[in-house]
Amino acid sequence: MATTTNPIQFGILGCAEIARKVARAIGLAPNAVLVAVGSRNLDKARRFIADNGLDAAAVRAIGSYEAVLSDPGVDAVYVPLPTSLHARWAVAAAESGKHLLLEKPTALCAAELDRILSACRSHGVQFMDGTMWMHNPRTAKMREYLSDSARFGQLKTIHSHFSFAADSDFLQNDIRVKPDLDALGALGDAGWYCIRSILWAADYELPKKAIALQGTVNNKAGVIMSCGSSLLWEDGKVATFKCSFIGHLTMELSVVGTNGSLHVSDFVIPFEEGKASFSFGSDLAFNELVTGWQPPPSKHIVTTDLPQEALMVQEFSRMVGSIRDSAGKPDDKWPVISRKTQLVLDAVRASIDQGCEPVEIVE
Amino acid sequence: MATTTNPIQFGILGCAEIARKVARAIGLAPNAVLVAVGSRNLDKARRFIADNGLDAAAVRAIGSYEAVLSDPGVDAVYVPLPTSLHARWAVAAAESGKHLLLEKPTALCAAELDRILSACRSHGVQFMDGTMWMHNPRTAKMREYLSDSARFGQLKTIHSHFSFAADSDFLQNDIRVKPDLDALGALGDAGWYCIRSILWAADYELPKKAIALQGTVNNKAGVIMSCGSSLLWEDGKVATFKCSFIGHLTMELSVVGTNGSLHVSDFVIPFEEGKASFSFGSDLAFNELVTGWQPPPSKHIVTTDLPQEALMVQEFSRMVGSIRDSAGKPDDKWPVISRKTQLVLDAVRASIDQGCEPVEIVE
Repeated sequence: MATTTNPIQFGILGCAEIARKVARAIGLAPNAVLVAVGSRNLDKARRFIADNGLDAAAVRAIGSYEAVLSDPGVDAVYVPLPTSLHARWAVAAAESGKHLLLEKPTALCAAELDRILSACRSHGVQFMDGTMWMHNPRTAKMREYLSDSARFGQLKTIHSHFSFAADSDFLQNDIRVKPDLDALGALGDAGWYCIRSILWAADYELPKKAIALQGTVNNKAGVIMSCGSSLLWEDGKVATFKCSFIGHLTMELSVVGTNGSLHVSDFVIPFEEGKASFSFGSDLAFNELVTGWQPPPSKHIVTTDLPQEALMVQEFSRMVGSIRDSAGKPDDKWPVISRKTQLVLDAVRASIDQGCEPVEIVE
Repeated sequence: MATTTNPIQFGILGCAEIARKVARAIGLAPNAVLVAVGSRNLDKARRFIADNGLDAAAVRAIGSYEAVLSDPGVDAVYVPLPTSLHARWAVAAAESGKHLLLEKPTALCAAELDRILSACRSHGVQFMDGTMWMHNPRTAKMREYLSDSARFGQLKTIHSHFSFAADSDFLQNDIRVKPDLDALGALGDAGWYCIRSILWAADYELPKKAIALQGTVNNKAGVIMSCGSSLLWEDGKVATFKCSFIGHLTMELSVVGTNGSLHVSDFVIPFEEGKASFSFGSDLAFNELVTGWQPPPSKHIVTTDLPQEALMVQEFSRMVGSIRDSAGKPDDKWPVISRKTQLVLDAVRASIDQGCEPVEIVE
């Protein structure tokens, strides 16, 4: 091992498409190693290992989720199961003493997430959700700009938009269109990122209320395919977002303060793995005759040696390592952020259900 | 004269700041010439001519608006007066047979604009509002992309944001914060552009209803400093916009269809006079492991020899010329677009006044 301590040994519960990306990320993170892939179908686990170029001698194929959780060689599990299965398996993982990297949306509602977080606390395991872009170094660089009160000033407006045009196979078969699997649909999937980006921009200050935008589109089974909301804070900050499975691939985030503004066009998944950009302007003004800007916003490029999902695994593993190897305690930072995201998501959903009436967000 | 016909002879009513930019534009447009600057104060008109490097032998300083309107050497007037004075002077201009280039917002409400348009029709004069970016060649190029049903598909979502951080002098003294001068405040100023951009993106199909976003900020006199709205169409298209005098300079426009999406960061006034860019992506997708885009959106740059405001004057003058020199009729294209913009603006204002209740937009 190149690292001084033993890497965190990961198991994966379920062979979801997204697990392929995270399996690679576990391989890339210097302090993590994949040791087990669990599926209800042993052949499927074997195929996942073979199809993704994993070393069959090092990664065990396991024919049940339970067996992964009882495997003493597994420190932590990544859970990319459909949202409706999160509560069951995330709680089971915590109860088995496995640290938990849980795919988003973390749960069907905040009450369910609270059960998961409570189990993690009781069993001393680390929790983190799978919101990868949080771990891109661009995100930290953008935070520097937003935290600079001289350059950015007071936050006023946030707008976030994540949509992608799902194909007919997705719209018929993906778990995210099925009420029994991912009942939150586009709100739980694309909307999770929008809400997170808004909370991130507001430095995790919870808005006071959510008012869904009219125009929600549901599929025949009643699952949200497209929706949006406004969010309001006590001090007058306002955010809007739009999330959709039926608009072309779009990932815009705009954050506007009194002195500066920031814009990103690929906030969830950067155009390229190794570098990501954003534009920021501060104290921009027009030229004398108002025929141009003086100066225009600047483009900033942040490079990274590891892709954001590997940095996520690395950060999670660092936290797990300090518990496993140094008798540390679970870090509360990520659970708190996940919970706020889920609370806002709940409020947006409630507002949609109530005909776009305002819904208070209570911590 | 370089052109085959005599250029259109312009008078300006009032020495507003924006008139400096348009005076230069009239000078740049090959088919227009500035012949008169009218102010209620003759010295102010003289100073305007001197301060802006205009030829005092060619441009007459005139001490009243009436005298400009009765000047037989004036074909057309540009009216940058406060909005509350538009109805009076725009109607007077039309009744004097002067073609009318009217600054935005065109009127305090659509009923008032209708009186202006009716006077223009009765007197056979051309009407156009002063929305300069409509005339940038970038706008036509973006239209090509949006009109391409293969590359763009069906329009789904529009978001437009125009804010600038007004300084304390503006917030105390500018006509746009005074209820007796520009009662529409940020909605009439920045919001006009947002609404126009949304209508433009929707190829001028009027939305069915407006629902203002909660969080409107008024100054002490009750004039809107910051507001936003959602707009909804019968077919499910949804737009949102935000306009403000209290956020850093921001001019974002995003237009998302089923197959493509377009983004501009300087839609009202391009960063530079001579060229303007936008990004467009069509059928963009993620790479196999969803770790990047394949391909990313493309950046398109459109150059122009004349700034957009000169192209606006040129287009207006072309229409005026065909009436003056070829017995043509006023072109209805721009009045119709102005009226739709004003109708939507009225509905947003009504929704704000009604506590953000939905307001129907009726043509």
